[in-house]
Amino acid sequence: CFISYSQENPAPKFGKGILNLIGQDSTWSMKIATRMQLLSTASWEKGPNGGLINPTSNTLIRRARLKFDGFAYSPKLKYKIELGLSNRDISGASEYTSNAPRYILDAVIMWNFYKNFEVRLGQSKLPGNMERLISSGNLQQVDRSLLNRRFTIDREMGIQLWHHFNLTDTFMVREKLSIAKGEGRNVTSENLGGHHYTARVELFPLGEFENNGEYSGGDLKREQKPKLMLAGSYDSNQNAVKTRSNQGSYMINDIGFYQTNISTVFIDAMFKYNGFSLMGEYAYRSANDPIAKNSDGTETGEVVWVGNGLNLQTGYLFPSNWEVSGRFTSIDIDKIITGRNLENQYTIGLSKYIVGHKLKVQTDMSYLAVSNEQDQILCRLQVELHF
Amino acid sequence: CFISYSQENPAPKFGKGILNLIGQDSTWSMKIATRMQLLSTASWEKGPNGGLINPTSNTLIRRARLKFDGFAYSPKLKYKIELGLSNRDISGASEYTSNAPRYILDAVIMWNFYKNFEVRLGQSKLPGNMERLISSGNLQQVDRSLLNRRFTIDREMGIQLWHHFNLTDTFMVREKLSIAKGEGRNVTSENLGGHHYTARVELFPLGEFENNGEYSGGDLKREQKPKLMLAGSYDSNQNAVKTRSNQGSYMINDIGFYQTNISTVFIDAMFKYNGFSLMGEYAYRSANDPIAKNSDGTETGEVVWVGNGLNLQTGYLFPSNWEVSGRFTSIDIDKIITGRNLENQYTIGLSKYIVGHKLKVQTDMSYLAVSNEQDQILCRLQVELHF
Amino acid sequence: CFISYSQENPAPKFGKGILNLIGQDSTWSMKIATRMQLLSTASWEKGPNGGLINPTSNTLIRRARLKFDGFAYSPKLKYKIELGLSNRDISGASEYTSNAPRYILDAVIMWNFYKNFEVRLGQSKLPGNMERLISSGNLQQVDRSLLNRRFTIDREMGIQLWHHFNLTDTFMVREKLSIAKGEGRNVTSENLGGHHYTARVELFPLGEFENNGEYSGGDLKREQKPKLMLAGSYDSNQNAVKTRSNQGSYMINDIGFYQTNISTVFIDAMFKYNGFSLMGEYAYRSANDPIAKNSDGTETGEVVWVGNGLNLQTGYLFPSNWEVSGRFTSIDIDKIITGRNLENQYTIGLSKYIVGHKLKVQTDMSYLAVSNEQDQILCRLQVELHF
Repeated sequence: CFISYSQENPAPKFGKGILNLIGQDSTWSMKIATRMQLLSTASWEKGPNGGLINPTSNTLIRRARLKFDGFAYSPKLKYKIELGLSNRDISGASEYTSNAPRYILDAVIMWNFYKNFEVRLGQSKLPGNMERLISSGNLQQVDRSLLNRRFTIDREMGIQLWHHFNLTDTFMVREKLSIAKGEGRNVTSENLGGHHYTARVELFPLGEFENNGEYSGGDLKREQKPKLMLAGSYDSNQNAVKTRSNQGSYMINDIGFYQTNISTVFIDAMFKYNGFSLMGEYAYRSANDPIAKNSDGTETGEVVWVGNGLNLQTGYLFPSNWEVSGRFTSIDIDKIITGRNLENQYTIGLSKYIVGHKLKVQTDMSYLAVSNEQDQILCRLQVELHF
Repeated sequence: CFISYSQENPAPKFGKGILNLIGQDSTWSMKIATRMQLLSTASWEKGPNGGLINPTSNTLIRRARLKFDGFAYSPKLKYKIELGLSNRDISGASEYTSNAPRYILDAVIMWNFYKNFEVRLGQSKLPGNMERLISSGNLQQVDRSLLNRRFTIDREMGIQLWHHFNLTDTFMVREKLSIAKGEGRNVTSENLGGHHYTARVELFPLGEFENNGEYSGGDLKREQKPKLMLAGSYDSNQNAVKTRSNQGSYMINDIGFYQTNISTVFIDAMFKYNGFSLMGEYAYRSANDPIAKNSDGTETGEVVWVGNGLNLQTGYLFPSNWEVSGRFTSIDIDKIITGRNLENQYTIGLSKYIVGHKLKVQTDMSYLAVSNEQDQILCRLQVELHF
Repeated sequence: CFISYSQENPAPKFGKGILNLIGQDSTWSMKIATRMQLLSTASWEKGPNGGLINPTSNTLIRRARLKFDGFAYSPKLKYKIELGLSNRDISGASEYTSNAPRYILDAVIMWNFYKNFEVRLGQSKLPGNMERLISSGNLQQVDRSLLNRRFTIDREMGIQLWHHFNLTDTFMVREKLSIAKGEGRNVTSENLGGHHYTARVELFPLGEFENNGEYSGGDLKREQKPKLMLAGSYDSNQNAVKTRSNQGSYMINDIGFYQTNISTVFIDAMFKYNGFSLMGEYAYRSANDPIAKNSDGTETGEVVWVGNGLNLQTGYLFPSNWEVSGRFTSIDIDKIITGRNLENQYTIGLSKYIVGHKLKVQTDMSYLAVSNEQDQILCRLQVELHF
């Protein structure tokens, strides 16, 4: 009795990808996955007499993605390609991106060239703040916090070196170094200013999380033992030309671009135990001279968003796979330099994980208090479907 | 004797998709399909002395699409994603779409939550005019009529509720309700004006069509018994801000957007029997005040395209799978308000269905008579390939 | 003993595509492939005292593509779709492309309707210069030469007729005729000026190359016997409206577009033997009246880039699959008409083909001497991964 086809079914279980391909002679592999998020929001401002005024609402395809990853030629040579499909995903076209939509999120080749060392070539997330490093498909609440929006360094084209080692049987340490272009993702024009250097160290004193859970929202694995990641990143964008390091707007002046060194520090922690999770992040940004100037010293009007932010988030996953979560975010962008007011945001969230992060319904409600401005209320409801 | 792989060949017959995937444990399914249309056109105006003048020609990739559909987690939870690839498909970028091309056509989740009830979340076609609801890959002539171009309400992000029941053994009734955003597809900016409400009722007094043929051009199934669909839609776009309800251009004024309630009514019918098909559509649009104004009452120059349209189309499919078809379209947009002239278009078409709508060659010739303007002649030739 | 699934593993060897699908009853086939190029460049100008000045650098995703090809319905009816994903691939949006990115590279149906005759409908490469006809994934050096950049006629929507026959047992001749739109790829607006006619004849006096190697850089197949292709193209763009035939910028004038007949001639040759390869190309462009004018005869400032170019390239592939290559390119665009200086470029390249053109690392260094301008040095490094 002969069987002419012995490969496993290339269509795996729900949530594990659309196709899990293994090339003939096992010379390569590819997992193809897709996902989408449907988001509805409603917001109000608090009126002078306490009532809610200025209602706005929105409903949109927040994210839609295609992902391809696996190895090529050798299991030591891996790759990942992630494409955005929704209008929000691909927005950001400018003359610096060939006036074309920013379709590619990740396009990176990872080579495990020696022992625990891995070099990464291409465009991918920089080793910056924890929230960004959690995939937008694995968030505990509907979306990331204000800290991420103000301070993240997101993705960039460049080269990274990763390494990890064990201090003791359980205590693992991971280091990530990056040299990148400095102006954010999908930039096709030549490098402006200097390069962009990032270093991150991650400590796992209680051992590794189940299934890389340090970068996944909520304790969906219900860790049997307490697990902790403590990490810090230092980011230096030399002669940076954008207002939020490699994000924000270009600081154009009379002779081209205003350039200044921008530093960003992130300190973050993730703790999980038996359905309980606690995440904390602190960000701090400074610049040599945050006020953009022309060649004659006059100010252009653009400034670097220097300041700091704090985000604390916690949640508990009930055995029924309902999770309640809370978040406090405080953003203090330097008021004297930027004119921006202090922001404090309080969010409570409720998630039902039908099939983990792969099929879930999430809702949250936020109260945003901005000094000297009207307070705001924001309600969101999101459905996520991930193959 | 053991067989390690028992799934059917995931690559189905021609025209049935590229891949028909069934996830392990039957937890999900996905059909992946693609299609493209290559179109050539030539047009002329009728000169004052009867000859043809001002020739123009074009040839382009009219449509190219990728489609994914199936169920996720439970057969009661279905989804559909359709992406456009050609320049015509993805055009329409504006500040309201994050200045990004409109890549996603459909992204919708359908949940059969109770008996014959289905709720649909996401972006998909609104329950409007019949011609729009026929996929552009299943048309009887090269493209849709002028009625569709002037009156369609196309796609939008929102929520729909579908239901169907039988009055008698054969008489089926289907109802579709929709609440949507009101500004058309792929809009990422917040909702403007009020919401957009649509209701449609479809009557099938002679029973269901073969293979959902009510929304497919031509009687390719050669219905053994006469089949009829009679349907009507009522559409109310509250405080609409665009000139053709959720289509056309934004009516910008001095304080933001001019807003008015726009109503659209569609009445349509499809009849098929033994290769013969007859389709009729009537559209009527009105607005509370169709003339856009500034806050001080002065006119902005934009107006709502109020008026009505009629489209009648018939065809006969010969046993050789050649089809001849005829179409008459009359568009009467209010001349006093919009300044537009009455349009009457006569089209004869010829189609060769090599593999049904999946591989076909279509040509048609149209004569367009516009009051007070030069008459026009349009010839088109299209090849469609659909996996 | 029954076997329910007899298809071969649809995931082929590395470099042979992601999926090789054969539809049920062999009614169609589809090969799906993807590739990406990661490019880093550094350049300098030669300063007045001989040193290097004005350094610039860049790193980007140079190309990322998805390809689909196979046959539909009958093996005589083939198709190819190629999509660009990177910002460089899809750039070039304009009002002529519906203000949408140029996502589709190829979308073409090929019908072998009679013996050695094949008709091609859709958008694909025109039968122009050899370098363009070599896929960007099969280049011998990091990228194509300046000759291609100045003279190529790239892709266009239209109809082509291909034919081939044998003069003797080994001497093969291939002819390609094309009628196209005249304004380059992904144009959705109507045809401007006249049509675009191209003819190409390819002679293979020593027989066919291994594996269609005439359009692949380097002699990776190490031809056992000398192989040669001699070819010539004649291209006539009637009433062309762009500065480089169907490329470059539109020559807009006071009454629409300046139109002139532009002719381009290409003569090229490819020789391969035992790891050695030699490629030569000559291009010549002329125009009836290369200086764009308004209706009153005043000049608009745009001119057709008339002139000629020569590219000579050679390489030797060592048994270790390292290849050294050299290139000389001379571009002489008419200085009186266009004001452009003579350019001579010298390039040496080094390639390591890990898995042929499917996984390779390439680097090259170029010295560009431009009359009356500073000389320039350009260094490039590229990694290519092709499934």
